[in-house]
Amino acid sequence: MIPLLLIIVGGLCAVAYGIVTILDVMRRDAGTQRMQEIAAAIAEGAQAYLRRQYTTIGLVGVVLFVLLAVFLGIKVAVGFLIGAVLSGAAGFIGMNVSVRANVRTAQAASTSLGGGLDVAFKSGAVTGMLVAGLALLGVALYYLFLTRGAHLDPSSREVIDALVALGFGASLISIFARLGGGIFTKGADVGGDLVGKVEAGIPEDDPRNPATIADNVGDNVGDCAGMAADLFETYAVTVVATMVLAAIFFSGPTGSGRDVLEPMMLYPLAIGSACILTSIAGTYAVRLGANQSIMGALYKGLIAAGVLSIGAIAAVNMTLLGGFSTTFTTSTGVTFTSGGLFGCAVIGLAITALIVVITEYYTGTNFRPVKSIADASVTGHGTNVIQGLAISLESTALPAIVIVAGIISTYALAGLFGIAIAVTAMLALAGFIVALDAFGPVTDNAGGIAEMAGLPAEVRKSTDALDAVGNTTKAVTKGYAIGSAGLGALVLFAAYTSDLNYFIANASPTQYRFFQGVSVDFSLSNPYVVVGLLLGGLIPFLFAGIAMTAVGRAAGAVVEEVRRQFREKPGIMQGTDRPDYGRAVDMLTRAAIKEMIVPSLLPVLSPVVLFFVIQLIAGKSQAFATVGASLLGVILTGLYVAISMTSGGGAWDNAKKYIEDGHHGGKGSEAHKAAVTGDTVGDPYKDTAGPAVNPAIKITNIIALLLLAVLAHS
Amino acid sequence: MIPLLLIIVGGLCAVAYGIVTILDVMRRDAGTQRMQEIAAAIAEGAQAYLRRQYTTIGLVGVVLFVLLAVFLGIKVAVGFLIGAVLSGAAGFIGMNVSVRANVRTAQAASTSLGGGLDVAFKSGAVTGMLVAGLALLGVALYYLFLTRGAHLDPSSREVIDALVALGFGASLISIFARLGGGIFTKGADVGGDLVGKVEAGIPEDDPRNPATIADNVGDNVGDCAGMAADLFETYAVTVVATMVLAAIFFSGPTGSGRDVLEPMMLYPLAIGSACILTSIAGTYAVRLGANQSIMGALYKGLIAAGVLSIGAIAAVNMTLLGGFSTTFTTSTGVTFTSGGLFGCAVIGLAITALIVVITEYYTGTNFRPVKSIADASVTGHGTNVIQGLAISLESTALPAIVIVAGIISTYALAGLFGIAIAVTAMLALAGFIVALDAFGPVTDNAGGIAEMAGLPAEVRKSTDALDAVGNTTKAVTKGYAIGSAGLGALVLFAAYTSDLNYFIANASPTQYRFFQGVSVDFSLSNPYVVVGLLLGGLIPFLFAGIAMTAVGRAAGAVVEEVRRQFREKPGIMQGTDRPDYGRAVDMLTRAAIKEMIVPSLLPVLSPVVLFFVIQLIAGKSQAFATVGASLLGVILTGLYVAISMTSGGGAWDNAKKYIEDGHHGGKGSEAHKAAVTGDTVGDPYKDTAGPAVNPAIKITNIIALLLLAVLAHS
Repeated sequence: MIPLLLIIVGGLCAVAYGIVTILDVMRRDAGTQRMQEIAAAIAEGAQAYLRRQYTTIGLVGVVLFVLLAVFLGIKVAVGFLIGAVLSGAAGFIGMNVSVRANVRTAQAASTSLGGGLDVAFKSGAVTGMLVAGLALLGVALYYLFLTRGAHLDPSSREVIDALVALGFGASLISIFARLGGGIFTKGADVGGDLVGKVEAGIPEDDPRNPATIADNVGDNVGDCAGMAADLFETYAVTVVATMVLAAIFFSGPTGSGRDVLEPMMLYPLAIGSACILTSIAGTYAVRLGANQSIMGALYKGLIAAGVLSIGAIAAVNMTLLGGFSTTFTTSTGVTFTSGGLFGCAVIGLAITALIVVITEYYTGTNFRPVKSIADASVTGHGTNVIQGLAISLESTALPAIVIVAGIISTYALAGLFGIAIAVTAMLALAGFIVALDAFGPVTDNAGGIAEMAGLPAEVRKSTDALDAVGNTTKAVTKGYAIGSAGLGALVLFAAYTSDLNYFIANASPTQYRFFQGVSVDFSLSNPYVVVGLLLGGLIPFLFAGIAMTAVGRAAGAVVEEVRRQFREKPGIMQGTDRPDYGRAVDMLTRAAIKEMIVPSLLPVLSPVVLFFVIQLIAGKSQAFATVGASLLGVILTGLYVAISMTSGGGAWDNAKKYIEDGHHGGKGSEAHKAAVTGDTVGDPYKDTAGPAVNPAIKITNIIALLLLAVLAHS
Repeated sequence: MIPLLLIIVGGLCAVAYGIVTILDVMRRDAGTQRMQEIAAAIAEGAQAYLRRQYTTIGLVGVVLFVLLAVFLGIKVAVGFLIGAVLSGAAGFIGMNVSVRANVRTAQAASTSLGGGLDVAFKSGAVTGMLVAGLALLGVALYYLFLTRGAHLDPSSREVIDALVALGFGASLISIFARLGGGIFTKGADVGGDLVGKVEAGIPEDDPRNPATIADNVGDNVGDCAGMAADLFETYAVTVVATMVLAAIFFSGPTGSGRDVLEPMMLYPLAIGSACILTSIAGTYAVRLGANQSIMGALYKGLIAAGVLSIGAIAAVNMTLLGGFSTTFTTSTGVTFTSGGLFGCAVIGLAITALIVVITEYYTGTNFRPVKSIADASVTGHGTNVIQGLAISLESTALPAIVIVAGIISTYALAGLFGIAIAVTAMLALAGFIVALDAFGPVTDNAGGIAEMAGLPAEVRKSTDALDAVGNTTKAVTKGYAIGSAGLGALVLFAAYTSDLNYFIANASPTQYRFFQGVSVDFSLSNPYVVVGLLLGGLIPFLFAGIAMTAVGRAAGAVVEEVRRQFREKPGIMQGTDRPDYGRAVDMLTRAAIKEMIVPSLLPVLSPVVLFFVIQLIAGKSQAFATVGASLLGVILTGLYVAISMTSGGGAWDNAKKYIEDGHHGGKGSEAHKAAVTGDTVGDPYKDTAGPAVNPAIKITNIIALLLLAVLAHS
């Protein structure tokens, strides 16, 4: 009981940090009246977006809640509700803080660069800590209720199903935030540019453009709410899947058995709790040094959080697992030590560090990849895009090798459970990582506000410097998000196979009847496994393709709305009439939600449809094999598609920045025009299709787990 | 013996058709002196390319020959030699016919459209029939020699290894032709455009541009020699892998046993032989109808060949398998009928038809995908590329579903062997398909010659019409090439697992010692299988990325060479001095060969390196599992990467054509400029990276099979 309470205290610390920091940020000076007006418009737009988005989520959520309650019982449905509400809350609060911190960042930057960094980073940290804290609290408190309040056995199916449903609740928010949000943000960006820059000939961030506010809202939608929901989901599903594996490995008659069941189930939660404290400590290490390097200040914080986490996890080992030399044996006969698990956690932290470094290499302006795209821009639009695509494809290699090395080494240390613990440790830093990402839109907005409010040039210089770093952190954290999503999904896949084996082994005429006589051949020489891999592998390609098209259509909707406003209110262009920002936001939100229906159904329905179609053709056993293989197929191609899109997009973005910094002729040159084309292509790559693949990967896996639960109930 | 001789007669018919048709084509009028001069320059360039390329291949080939002779014996080395020489011969002869048919097509087109079509298609058919005929003859004659001449048992390892090595010989040519050739053709295209159109301001196909001839040579390099080598390889490896499966399935003490061994091993050869005859018959059905539809004429031929093939395969069944109701049982306990095998063959033909239709939908100007890219061009370069990428991702879906349906249905009919037979039947039409593809560069060249020789506008109109159809057939056959390569590689993968099981089952202290105590877990729940899938899946991404970069560098080399010639011979631009076309071709060939070294080593070395690294870490058994899984990983992502690139590139190409046909403002409009950007991006997509993935997929699988053979020898 005491470890569980300590875990909960960790989660509460995150929430407390959030509240204190919100109050701190809100106390800052909000600048001139003009700045406040603009910020109010953005905040109003964010409200319009959130209202429309959450209303839709609410409707879908109610339907899913009822379905879960009917098929799997009320505890499962409540688990779903908890996951959805907490993830929604983290995104909602985060967005609202972001759209208030932006103007305060602009104002603080007018005094000092350090001041601007402080406000922007702190507001990002609010979102980050809420993500980690609420995800941890949700799982821990519901587990506390189920095992202590409802007196269920920790390894019982009811507990497992309820926790999996909590992850599914997070998935609901995640797919809306990533896919719907991604279509929204790039629809606003591309559409606004088309009708503003190209048609009307007014600059970016011009307040006369009715889509300008939507564009600023979109930044927060993507990199604050979107990233928050994505990592909340990965956090929740990874912790839950690790707990499920613990329940399966340590509840059987063989192995170390039930004595270690609860410590093992709590171990991932404890790592999460400990790393919340180190992440909070890390935020205090973010300070501008004498060299005025913003990126350096942020990395100082990340390194501090990472190094402290090693100590904190060691402390968890001492408290929960009796140090480092205790030996455990799973019910499947794998033996490892608590020291081995600690090693896995450290490897998880190392993977985080390596992925950050690799992604910065591929998207930073100081290195070969971005420079090569900038060089290729000199010879035109086509060569810019060719080189960008080449880099995007190439950028998959090193992260893949890091992930593979992580799998091999942690499996050697502690088997499947070791892999799960590594991913848990990787995600334990999610609080700090989201802080880095949510920092981006705040500085981006701050720059926009400084522009629109006509602040002096040196303020613009500070906000530009912050914005440039924001571009890098956004790219870097996207690499982390997809890497962790892929690994988290692998843990989910392990949970699927373990769950399936459990149901088959325990099937009888009285329980798990559906699984009687089922014998699944997961071997690669079973053609249905090949079929599953192929069909699963197709999903990220098709999903990403539809998402890219959706951005185009949403942008088209923006163009029409802006044209309509210009037509009906000629005063807008003369500056005598105010555009209806809210209407543009609301219209775009509706368009984005409409556009996300088809692609979001793809990962949701495919495991279910695949199961029943193959069951019809070849029977239950092959259906389970096909669905299982399809999960791995989604992970496999999803990882590569998402990494290539997010890194490639980031590289294009910074190649443009690199030219704007005065290389190859600078702004306005032919090379710059080519680089703008690359950046436009990279936008939906890195902000819509790529990131949206993350929830797609996780959702197929979660749905498959729920499908098993439903079949077990039937 | 008689069936084998009949098979050989089929192969000889293809060769005879080739000779007769070459004579027929060469008899045609070669046009004016100016035309002949230009054609001579192209032919000379082709010679320069072939000389340099084949010299390098020869050097690499000698090394490989010696290595194979040392490690696996002389019969294996000779098999390799046969595969390499025959595939090389098909490409060599095909190229030489193409670069002589181009001018004759231009001349014939000046009389009638039907005349131009006749010459161009016939010259393509030479390459096509040589591919199918020589591949079939190589396998059949060497099999005849090994079993009747050297009196080896048809199912012995020596026969199997020698035939696999024959496939490997074809692979050597294929990787050079596809990767080196792909870099060559797009280096010439992109580089020539950059320095000619952009820098010097002279039109495409201007004889003053020293890279013009290289560009025209490049068309033949890619779509004549490249496609020929690619499909020769797929043809050979598929037939061989199917024979290997037959040897394993029908040589054991259980099952139908040795009585059916030889018929089963000959069945794929007989299908190939029968379909050569139907393909030849199909070429006579290519006739321009009253509606003057060129595409219609070509499809008439394809449909005729396909329908006749059904009858021909039925005849093979009657002769070789005793009709349709004979029952067979494999040594692994799978039972099927000869009628089932016939069904599989028909499904293979149906897959061919469906992939042709789907690819035409995605790349034809009459359908949504291409039109959507053309529409997106109106709003700029960026939106054109975004929509093109969206279509390229989306285009993977239907072919994947067709392939999956094919796998499921043929597996249901006749197990693994059924899948192999379906792929064999699919490839049996390779002769006709290559004819369609090799038609493209001839018409493309004909257009160029008409332009450069200043032929009247109505001739240009005819050659343009032929050229437009050539674009479509090039795109369509690329879909077929990648679909069949993927399926062929699946058969190779089945051969790998079957081979491995065979070695493990028969391992003893006296033979296959290396495999003693090996027990391979190919289950998806083995993390090493996941590792293998991930690393294998990486190869096509990384390979394609490097290939794209290589095109950029080769184009840079062209730019420098052309600048040098302009600088040193100022007379070129005034038309008083002749550019040194041969030097440009030779320089580019060298650049292309240099650029292909790194990417080509990737698929060649990865199975070997992977095996020994994992053996070091986790032992032999896991090493076999990892390598096996990596083969499937390559197939999985390779299929999607290649389809998306070839279809996407074709769609971009035709979106430009669609605009040039007068839509969205036509040639010279802003939309057209954007479409040119898309086309430039699509070029290395569809002509370098995408097609080069085909041999990469097959080579990893072949290398893995050879690795097994080497280990079995040790």
